[in-house]
Amino acid sequence: MTASRRLVLARRPTGMVDDATTRLEEGAAPVPGAGQALLRVRYLSIDPTIRTWMDDAPGYLPPIALGETIRGAGVGEVVESNIERYAPGDLVVGMVGWQDYALADDGAAAMQTIPPGIDPVLGLSVLGVTGITAYFGMTDVGRVAEGDTVVVSGAAGATGSVAGQIAKIRGARRVVGIAGTAEKCAWIVDELGFDAAVNYRHDDLPGALRAACPEGIDLYYDNVGGPVLDACLAQLALHGRVVMCGAISLYSATERPPGPKNIFNLIIKRARMEGFLLLDYFDRFPEAQTALFGWLTEGRLKHAEHIVEGLEHAPDALNLLFTGGNRGKVIVKL
Amino acid sequence: MTASRRLVLARRPTGMVDDATTRLEEGAAPVPGAGQALLRVRYLSIDPTIRTWMDDAPGYLPPIALGETIRGAGVGEVVESNIERYAPGDLVVGMVGWQDYALADDGAAAMQTIPPGIDPVLGLSVLGVTGITAYFGMTDVGRVAEGDTVVVSGAAGATGSVAGQIAKIRGARRVVGIAGTAEKCAWIVDELGFDAAVNYRHDDLPGALRAACPEGIDLYYDNVGGPVLDACLAQLALHGRVVMCGAISLYSATERPPGPKNIFNLIIKRARMEGFLLLDYFDRFPEAQTALFGWLTEGRLKHAEHIVEGLEHAPDALNLLFTGGNRGKVIVKL
Repeated sequence: MTASRRLVLARRPTGMVDDATTRLEEGAAPVPGAGQALLRVRYLSIDPTIRTWMDDAPGYLPPIALGETIRGAGVGEVVESNIERYAPGDLVVGMVGWQDYALADDGAAAMQTIPPGIDPVLGLSVLGVTGITAYFGMTDVGRVAEGDTVVVSGAAGATGSVAGQIAKIRGARRVVGIAGTAEKCAWIVDELGFDAAVNYRHDDLPGALRAACPEGIDLYYDNVGGPVLDACLAQLALHGRVVMCGAISLYSATERPPGPKNIFNLIIKRARMEGFLLLDYFDRFPEAQTALFGWLTEGRLKHAEHIVEGLEHAPDALNLLFTGGNRGKVIVKL
Repeated sequence: MTASRRLVLARRPTGMVDDATTRLEEGAAPVPGAGQALLRVRYLSIDPTIRTWMDDAPGYLPPIALGETIRGAGVGEVVESNIERYAPGDLVVGMVGWQDYALADDGAAAMQTIPPGIDPVLGLSVLGVTGITAYFGMTDVGRVAEGDTVVVSGAAGATGSVAGQIAKIRGARRVVGIAGTAEKCAWIVDELGFDAAVNYRHDDLPGALRAACPEGIDLYYDNVGGPVLDACLAQLALHGRVVMCGAISLYSATERPPGPKNIFNLIIKRARMEGFLLLDYFDRFPEAQTALFGWLTEGRLKHAEHIVEGLEHAPDALNLLFTGGNRGKVIVKL
């Protein structure tokens, strides 16, 4: 019998996750049945949406139940397999959960195998859900076009950093990133090639946005919601688009903040605001992965990962997303 | 010299228009130059957007200046013409302003002639900007489809009453109107053929909406903004659409109310919210007018006008839109 640790939801958090939110339990690793494989979890993908699943509120997936293992994507290594699809040693990506061992199935819950030679960390970041989200959000929902002025919030984060680079690759005239520290602002301009950065904490945000986007915002890629969204709505250009990818400023808020006052500007500017979720794009993953892999190998797409070691530190890793302590994709290495 | 009265903007209103907002001035009617025609104004179209032009705030048109004649659409009768386009006796629709006499030009500001045999009042309501707005908002922006559950606010108003009927004609499964009195709610169901009505003043709005739209809202046509918009956002169905046609609850508000809290639901439901203005559709007016005229003559499209007599009562007529004192299109007859 192989021992396996797991983090379960012990208490629903108010605001950020704390010591009482999760509980580390130890038990036996699951035994794979027919058509199943046993995975040793190697990496966890730390995503803002995990925090939303901890609330007892309606969403696009049911809340995580109290006592249930925290839901989350990750990379597992196949250690035992009763199914042809997976061979021992394969690295696969899927919803492994916050635990040492997980099961992989076939069918709808089947996991994607990472091709040999690809760093598994990239399978969670720029070549995984993060990069694919940025790809479809920017190209399909936002319809980024040549000559656009594009603004991306959470620009030093996993999705935002990729989204802004895709905008440049696809011909945007000007890409402006919004981030929360001077160091992040410098990074997205100096390393990632954004044209300008705005620090939402220290600047007069409306004034800084006006200066950075003198002709208005054609496309705003929103990862944060709240006052940053409101400020960008006020600066939309004619026929502007707002891509709603996430609203991280709301997920750990203890009170539901007011909505954006400048929503009426959508009429004045004949503008469109649209939300999306990656789960509607499963069938088109290969399209995105091919494009992302190409840009990566051509050196046109940079990426960063923030690695946290140890399953037991996964809750702290999640909090990094809300304190802004990360640059690029947060990943827990087991 | 012909005497002509005009209502000018005397003071910018706070909240609703009052006696100090406009001033009646009397002077000489303008004299048409080469390429111009003189119009006797017969009817004024009273539209919510006029109130927004009275504020000193950026919009899709410049504010009305203090001392300037109130801007507004209407019907004029050609009484003198120096241009082949207009013949004496013609009835034309355009931006005549709140005055007894106006000039008609050619070119970009040219007015549309109402064909003989068409009631000029219809040229301002169901066959005019009101009906055309409802047509493009419902079909082009909202992409109403067979089987949709559609909710329309301001449903007893000029645009809403037509928008809801167009949704039914285009195959919506269920059309629910939101209005502010029991009498209006009865009218839209009994006379206009809406499937249900919700009174936003007296009902538990979220509960009433849930009951009226048990499978959620596929398409919400918003004329009002504010809490009604927020309640509808919360009830969106998967891939729902919100058409932002107007936000009458904001136009005469003395304080800018908070934005919709439920905006995040656009992500959960992968939904789209889009604003539009009719001025982007000038080239396609004939398409809408042909459809509307056809439905009107087939008896499939009902309409109502609320006629107020006398130029001097135009400010009161405008206030009717904000007190909800009207049913259908408000028109001032000179």
